[in-house]
This record gives sequence, C-alpha cells and structure tokens, in this order.
Amino acid sequence: MSIKVLAFDGDDTLWHNETHFQLTQTEFRELLQRHVPDADIDARLFSTEMANLSLYGYGIKSFTLSMIETAIAVTEGKIPASDLEVILGWGKRMLREPTELLDGVTETLLEMAARYKLLLITKGDLFDQESKLARSGLAELFSGVEILSDKNQHSYEVVLARRGITPGEFVMVGNSLRSDVVPVLQLGGTAVHIPYHLTWSHELVDEEALPANGWHRLESVRELGQLLARLDHAGVH
Amino acid sequence: MSIKVLAFDGDDTLWHNETHFQLTQTEFRELLQRHVPDADIDARLFSTEMANLSLYGYGIKSFTLSMIETAIAVTEGKIPASDLEVILGWGKRMLREPTELLDGVTETLLEMAARYKLLLITKGDLFDQESKLARSGLAELFSGVEILSDKNQHSYEVVLARRGITPGEFVMVGNSLRSDVVPVLQLGGTAVHIPYHLTWSHELVDEEALPANGWHRLESVRELGQLLARLDHAGVH
Repeated sequence: MSIKVLAFDGDDTLWHNETHFQLTQTEFRELLQRHVPDADIDARLFSTEMANLSLYGYGIKSFTLSMIETAIAVTEGKIPASDLEVILGWGKRMLREPTELLDGVTETLLEMAARYKLLLITKGDLFDQESKLARSGLAELFSGVEILSDKNQHSYEVVLARRGITPGEFVMVGNSLRSDVVPVLQLGGTAVHIPYHLTWSHELVDEEALPANGWHRLESVRELGQLLARLDHAGVH
Repeated sequence: MSIKVLAFDGDDTLWHNETHFQLTQTEFRELLQRHVPDADIDARLFSTEMANLSLYGYGIKSFTLSMIETAIAVTEGKIPASDLEVILGWGKRMLREPTELLDGVTETLLEMAARYKLLLITKGDLFDQESKLARSGLAELFSGVEILSDKNQHSYEVVLARRGITPGEFVMVGNSLRSDVVPVLQLGGTAVHIPYHLTWSHELVDEEALPANGWHRLESVRELGQLLARLDHAGVH
C-alpha cells in the first residue's frame, strides 16, 4: 500500500485519559460506599452513563452529570449537597488536568510528520478536546483536526470524503478496537491498535468478531515507524 | 459584491434556543427562592456560568452543571438532593426539546440554497448541536456544517481558509452581534444581523462599538433574499 494520511486518536493514544476517569471513579465509589456500603457503585454508574449516552454524548461533563445522578439515585436522595459539590469539583479537576503525553509520542509524531500527512481524529466533547490538544504542544504537527461526536463507519467516511482521502492510503492509529479499528476496517482502511493499559467497558469489543486482516497491533507507538515502512514497502496490508 | 457562500448561525437564528434556557432559568429561580427568598438567583447563576466558561464551554450540559453549583452555593449546601435531581431533569428536558424552527426559515433556506452555497456555522456543544441539526430536517440544505467551540475572528478565519472562501464572497447571518457580526466584520466579510427577541447577557455588545458598514439588520429571515439580491447587484457592501 501507499500510505499518505496517518491519523491518530487522542485520548489514551497520544495522551493519558482513562486513568483520570478511573481515579475519579475510585474516589466516587469510596464516597458513596460511606452512605450505601453494599451498593455496586460501578455497575450503577455505568448503567447511568449508558442510559445518558444518547442524550449527553461522551466527555467529562457527561461523566460528571452521570456521577451526580447516580449519587442521588443510589442514596435515594439522602446524599448531602456538600458531597455533590465534591463531585462537581472532581469534574473540574479532570477538565483542568494537564495533557500528559504517552511515552514516545512526541518523537514518533515528529518522525511521522516528515513522512505522512497527519490528522488527529478524536471523539468526545469539542471544547475539552480542543483544550487538551492546545495544551499538548502537538497541534502544529497535524494538518487537520477532526473532533467527532462518535467514531463509526459513517463519521469516518464523511471525514475522508471531505478531505479527498481514499481508504487505501489511510491508516488510523488508536487504542480502541471499537472506535479506531472496527469502523476503519469496515470502510476498507488500515488500522493500528495500540492498547492502553485501561479500557472503559463501553469501548470493549470481542476480538473474535474482528477480521483477520487490515489491522495490526503494537505494544508502543515507538514501533509505528517500522510497521508503516514495512506496510509501505510490502505493497499489501 | 459577488456573494458565493451564505452561512447561518443555528441557535436563535434558525431554531429557538434562548427561550428554552430562559424558561428553565425561571423555574430555577422559583425553586431556589423557596430556600433563599432574598438571593439574586439570576446574578449568581450568570456569575457561575462566566466563571465556568473557560472550563466548560457553551451548551446545555455546562448550563446544568452551573445551575447545580449555584443551587448548592446559594443555599449554603442546604438544598436537598431531590431538588438537584429536578435540576438534572431540566437539563435532560432541554436536550430532548424538539428543534423548533423560526418563522420563514424553511422557505428562505430552500430559496437561498438555489442561489448560494449554504454553510451552518454554530457554536456550542458538538453532540447537542449535531442532534438539533439532525432533528431540524434542514441538514441536506447545507453543503457544510461547522460546530465551533467559540466564534471569534480566528475560528472564522480557520473555517474560511480550510474551505477556500474569501471574505469578499462570504455573508454570515445570525442573531448575535458578538458571535455572528463582530468577528465577521473583523475579517472583512459581510454580516446580516437578525435579532431574536431574547438575548443571553453574555452575547450582548455595545452597538456603538460596531463599524457603520459591512453589516445589515433585518427583522425577519424572510427579508434576506431581497437584501442579498440588492447587495449582489450593487457591487458594494
């Protein structure tokens, strides 16, 4: 294949994200267990998040609203407002968190930017994602930035069509099989999966259901240059 | 001038929006005045919203989080969780609100789409704005949709540059002097201001500070075709 456009996911591919969610969720669990020791807080929160997804979309503000809703429901309205204020504060802390790049990201992006056109294709809250990118120091390496409300075959197709990119010259790099690999394979592109050590339950996909070809797995973004050079020379993907 | 691209704002230009915010804010005021009869609820809420703007951005989720924060602060933590649950419900109700088009919008857009390339340039929450557009039935009339986290000279310039549009062929139509008129004049485009009967305090601008030329005011979107025909023929703006 002849790779022209290399696209990267943001959260947990270029910078840490799920870590912040899970740390906050641990604090949330501990706070609520003081009120309701026997409740399965994580299950309740996940079910609230899923029920709200079509209304709120992804992101920290949605997560904060779902935490507050879960806290009220699980305690049957007995939680004091001061505890809910603490939860609001966690949301703000997450939004203020510095953009902490994953190991090897800066070197790899600098190297890749010399060989390919780079795109950032991320999903979630527009405002928060723009702010994270600005704080990452990586913005000028990307020739384009796409913040999608969801990553599926259709939303990728719209991006590729608008930018005049063919699937055969497109490689997507990300940590989520659901968002970065499956939809890209569906439209005939190539995907590189670099797992993060934590994955939100919603992003989990049964690997048995994935096609055998068209995607590759790396342990670190540092291995990307070598893989792409191999794909480019092999003439196949 | 030779108009090629006609861009529309969404909220309060194509569909009602501020009405929903103000109705909810009235309910919010009434709810809190039962706890703290003497507090200036509107001023407190506005000041919370402004303090949170750089962290939350615009939109209904941000508004909901700021209402909850204000409710806790104004009542000094005495508000029961059940009242906060009511506020969460208002946010969801706003997100579910059907997209109610302003008078004359459908006819005007159909007519304009035959003469110009139409863009939607709106700001706010990505997920909510996409959902409103989908429910509006207008999506297929626009050749492009831009949802910006903020509308300023720079964010407009990025849109125009990416789409290869020159300011001289660009007209922006919207209800906000701050977001739809001022930045467009700054970059040398033409703006059409169609006021909505309600304006959020944050969007207010001192009209004395505006340039005398380059913008026009209409009472209704129905007058747009005539104005643009006149501008197109006059060769000036």
